Amino acid sequence: MLKQVAVLKKPSPPKPKSRPAALPASDKQAVPETAGPVVSPLAPKIIAKLPPLSGVRLAAGEAGVRYQGRTDVLLAVMAPGTQVGGVFTISKTAAAPVEWCRAALAQKSARMLVVNSGNANAFTGKAGVDGVRMTAESAAALSGCRPQEVFIASTGVIGEPLPVQRITRVLPDIYENTGAGAWNDAARAIMTTDTFPKLATASAQIDGARVTINGIAKGSGMIAPDMATMLSFVFTDAKIPSEILQQLLVQGVRDSFNATTVDSDTSTSDTLLLFATGKGALHDPVLRSADKRLDDFRNKLFALMTDLAVQVVRDGEGATHLVRINVNGAESQPAARKIALSIANSPLVKTAIAGGDANWGRIVMAIGKSGEAANRDKLSIKIGNHKVATNGQRDPGYSEALLSKYMLRPEIEIDVDVGVGKFSSGVWTCDLTHGYIAINGDYRS
Amino acid sequence: MLKQVAVLKKPSPPKPKSRPAALPASDKQAVPETAGPVVSPLAPKIIAKLPPLSGVRLAAGEAGVRYQGRTDVLLAVMAPGTQVGGVFTISKTAAAPVEWCRAALAQKSARMLVVNSGNANAFTGKAGVDGVRMTAESAAALSGCRPQEVFIASTGVIGEPLPVQRITRVLPDIYENTGAGAWNDAARAIMTTDTFPKLATASAQIDGARVTINGIAKGSGMIAPDMATMLSFVFTDAKIPSEILQQLLVQGVRDSFNATTVDSDTSTSDTLLLFATGKGALHDPVLRSADKRLDDFRNKLFALMTDLAVQVVRDGEGATHLVRINVNGAESQPAARKIALSIANSPLVKTAIAGGDANWGRIVMAIGKSGEAANRDKLSIKIGNHKVATNGQRDPGYSEALLSKYMLRPEIEIDVDVGVGKFSSGVWTCDLTHGYIAINGDYRS
Repeated sequence: MLKQVAVLKKPSPPKPKSRPAALPASDKQAVPETAGPVVSPLAPKIIAKLPPLSGVRLAAGEAGVRYQGRTDVLLAVMAPGTQVGGVFTISKTAAAPVEWCRAALAQKSARMLVVNSGNANAFTGKAGVDGVRMTAESAAALSGCRPQEVFIASTGVIGEPLPVQRITRVLPDIYENTGAGAWNDAARAIMTTDTFPKLATASAQIDGARVTINGIAKGSGMIAPDMATMLSFVFTDAKIPSEILQQLLVQGVRDSFNATTVDSDTSTSDTLLLFATGKGALHDPVLRSADKRLDDFRNKLFALMTDLAVQVVRDGEGATHLVRINVNGAESQPAARKIALSIANSPLVKTAIAGGDANWGRIVMAIGKSGEAANRDKLSIKIGNHKVATNGQRDPGYSEALLSKYMLRPEIEIDVDVGVGKFSSGVWTCDLTHGYIAINGDYRS
Repeated sequence: MLKQVAVLKKPSPPKPKSRPAALPASDKQAVPETAGPVVSPLAPKIIAKLPPLSGVRLAAGEAGVRYQGRTDVLLAVMAPGTQVGGVFTISKTAAAPVEWCRAALAQKSARMLVVNSGNANAFTGKAGVDGVRMTAESAAALSGCRPQEVFIASTGVIGEPLPVQRITRVLPDIYENTGAGAWNDAARAIMTTDTFPKLATASAQIDGARVTINGIAKGSGMIAPDMATMLSFVFTDAKIPSEILQQLLVQGVRDSFNATTVDSDTSTSDTLLLFATGKGALHDPVLRSADKRLDDFRNKLFALMTDLAVQVVRDGEGATHLVRINVNGAESQPAARKIALSIANSPLVKTAIAGGDANWGRIVMAIGKSGEAANRDKLSIKIGNHKVATNGQRDPGYSEALLSKYMLRPEIEIDVDVGVGKFSSGVWTCDLTHGYIAINGDYRS
C-alpha cells in the first residue's frame, strides 16, 4: 500500500502533495487556516548551511514551467567518475523521468542531474518519454557527457504535457552559473509548495579521511493545483562504487524515507539518488557495504537521510503535530511496520491528534485494522510517558486530564506493545487538519 | 486493510466514527461547517416506512449509557425457530459483543437482539466479556430463551467500561413495549451521531409465497467523543435455514457493505446479522443458497443490503459528495477491488472531489499506488460522461471547464480501465471535507 524502496526494480518512498501558490478564497467553505506560504510550525528552527562538496557544482534557474517569479530548474554537474545509486516510487504509474533514471542507473556513472518543479511529466505518454530524452541530450551536450549519464526528476502536475523547451532553453545559462555554494538555491528550486527548503549535511571518516555528505529534499509541500512528490538528492565526495551506494540506499531508506507518511498517497515520481564524486579526501577503495571502514559513513548517511525524511513530514500539508509511532512486541519486523503505518495513516487517529484529543480508542482500532497479529488482552499503549492501556484495557492510573495536556505538544510519541512477539518498528507521521483539506480541496471549481 | 466479510471466522465491514453530540466551539481552529445534527445533504429524500414482519417485535428504550434524552437501546424479539446468519469485523481487536455473536451463531437459532449505542464495549477486558453475558442472561430471562439465543451489538466509545446495569435495568420495560411497528424507533436507537435513521424494506416471492425483508443500519455517523461503527440488522419472515442465510450474507456483502468506504478505518464492532423467522407466507423448504426459487429473494435481499450500505456512505462524516468508482480491465476481481478502494480511500482524491476539483491526476496516482497491475499506456479514465484520459495520456477532447461543472454534482461517477485484463469491481465512497476534520478533530482538548 505504502511506499517501499529497493534496488532498481523495487522502488522508493512517496509523498504527493498540492496547494495553490496563493490560495484563492473558496466559495464553498470557510478556510479556517491560513494556507498561504506560511512556514510550517514544525519547521526546523535553523536551515542547515551546506559546505562546498568536491566534484559538485550546482545552480538553479527560472524556466517558467508552471510557476512565475521563482526558480524551478536545478542543474547539478558532477566530476567525471561520479558513481550513483537510486531508489524510486513503487507506483505502477511511475512518471517518465523515473523510468529514465531506472534505465540510466545500469551504467552506474553520473555526470549531471536536472530537476524541474511545476510539472511531474507523469501520465504524459510518448511525449513525456521524448521530453526526458530531449532534456538529457540538451544537458549532456553542455558538459560533453553521454545522455545516459544525466539523471532527471520532475515534480508537479500529473497528466499535463511537459513544456520541455522551457527547460532546455534555460539549461545553457544555468550551466554557466554553476558553482560550489548553491545548495540553498538548489533546495529551493525543487520546492513545489513546500513551506521551507530541506537541507542536511554531515561529515564522516573513512579510513581516517574526512568526507562530506550533503543532501536536499522536497515533498509534503504542495503544488497548485496538483500533487507534488518526494524527491531527495544526496551527494558525497567519498569514493564509493555504485553497487555499494545502492546497497547503502536500500538499507538506509528502511528507517528514514520509508518510515514516514503524511497521507498514505504514493507519488508517481518519488526519487532518491545518491551520488559519490570520489573527489574528496583520499581513502582506500571500499569494496563491500558491510566494510567496517564504512561504519562511520554509513551511520552519518543514515542519520542524514532520516533528518531529511523527517523534515518532509514536518512540512506535511497542514501539519501541526509531528508524531513518532513505535510498535513493539510484534510477530515480525514487517508486521510491526504494518501496524505502525496503520496507526500513522488512520484518518481518525490523525484527526484526534490534530484536535489534541486523548482518544486512544482509535489507536486500538488502527491496530486491529492492520490485519497483523495482536493479543488484545496483552495490548499496551503509552502516549508520551502516560500509560493509557495495559493488558487489554484502560490503565488503572490513566488520567485523561494529564494526557490531554501532553497532546497539546507539537511533537507526540506513541508507544504500542501488541504482545505477541519481539519485533519492533517505528514511523513518523503528522496530523490531519483543516489545513490539509484547505490545501487539497479548497481551490479550483 | 479494509473491511472484509465472510462466514464466522472471516468477518465483515467497518466504519468507525465519532462526533460530539453538540459540537462545542473549538479554541484551536475555526469550525467551517455546522457539525451539529444537520442532516447529511446526501440523505435519501424519503425515509423508508417498514411494514410489520411476522415473528418480529421491537422496541427502543432510554438507558442513558452515554447519551441523555434519547433512546439508546434496541430490543428485538423473534419467534421461536428463528434462524440467523452473521458476518463481522475483521479487526484483530474486535469488541466483546462481536466475539459473543460469533460463538452464538454456532447454534444457528436466535430469539432476541439487544443493541446499545454510546459505548462499544470494546477493549474492555474481562469486564466487557462479563457485561455481554449479563446482558444476554437478563434478556433471555424475559423471553425464556437460552442466553446463547440472544445476539448483542454495541456501538460507541472504545476502551471505556460499559455500564451494563443501565442496560439490564431497562430491558424489562422495553420488553413489555415491544410491538410490530417500531422499525423507525429501532433504527433511531442504534444511531450514534448518524444524521438520519437508515431503513429499507422489500418484498420477494419464494415459490409463489410473498415474503418481506426489513433492514436497518447505522454507521458513518459519529459519536462523542469516540468512534462509532457499522451495524446492520436484516429480518425476513421467510423460512430459510441458518446455513443458507450465512451463504447469502457472505455473497451479498461483497458488493454492498464490503464495497463501501468512508475513511478506511475499520471498526472493532462491525456486525451484520440476518434473521429469518419463518412466520410469513408458507413456502416449501429452501435447501441450497443456489436454489432457483431463491432468485427473487436473493436479488431483493442483495438490493436491500446495497441500499443500506449506500445510506451509510451518504451519511459519511462531513460528506458532501457520494462517489461511485468502477474499475474495469483488471487482472482479477480482487485486483479490480483493490484498485477501486485505493482510489476511494485516497485522501488526495477525496479532497479534490470535496473541492469540486477536476484533478484526475490524483486518480492516476491512486491507481499506481494500489500495487496492482495496470498498463499505464492503455489506462483510460472517465468521470461522468467526460473522457479525461485515454491510452495513457490526457484525452484529446478533454475539457476542464465541462468536467469542473460535472464535479459540482452531489453524486459523481468515476470509471477507470486499467487495460490489463477483463475483471471489474465497483465501490462507493464519499469526499473528505472540513466537516470530517471538524467532527473528528475539533473537540476535546
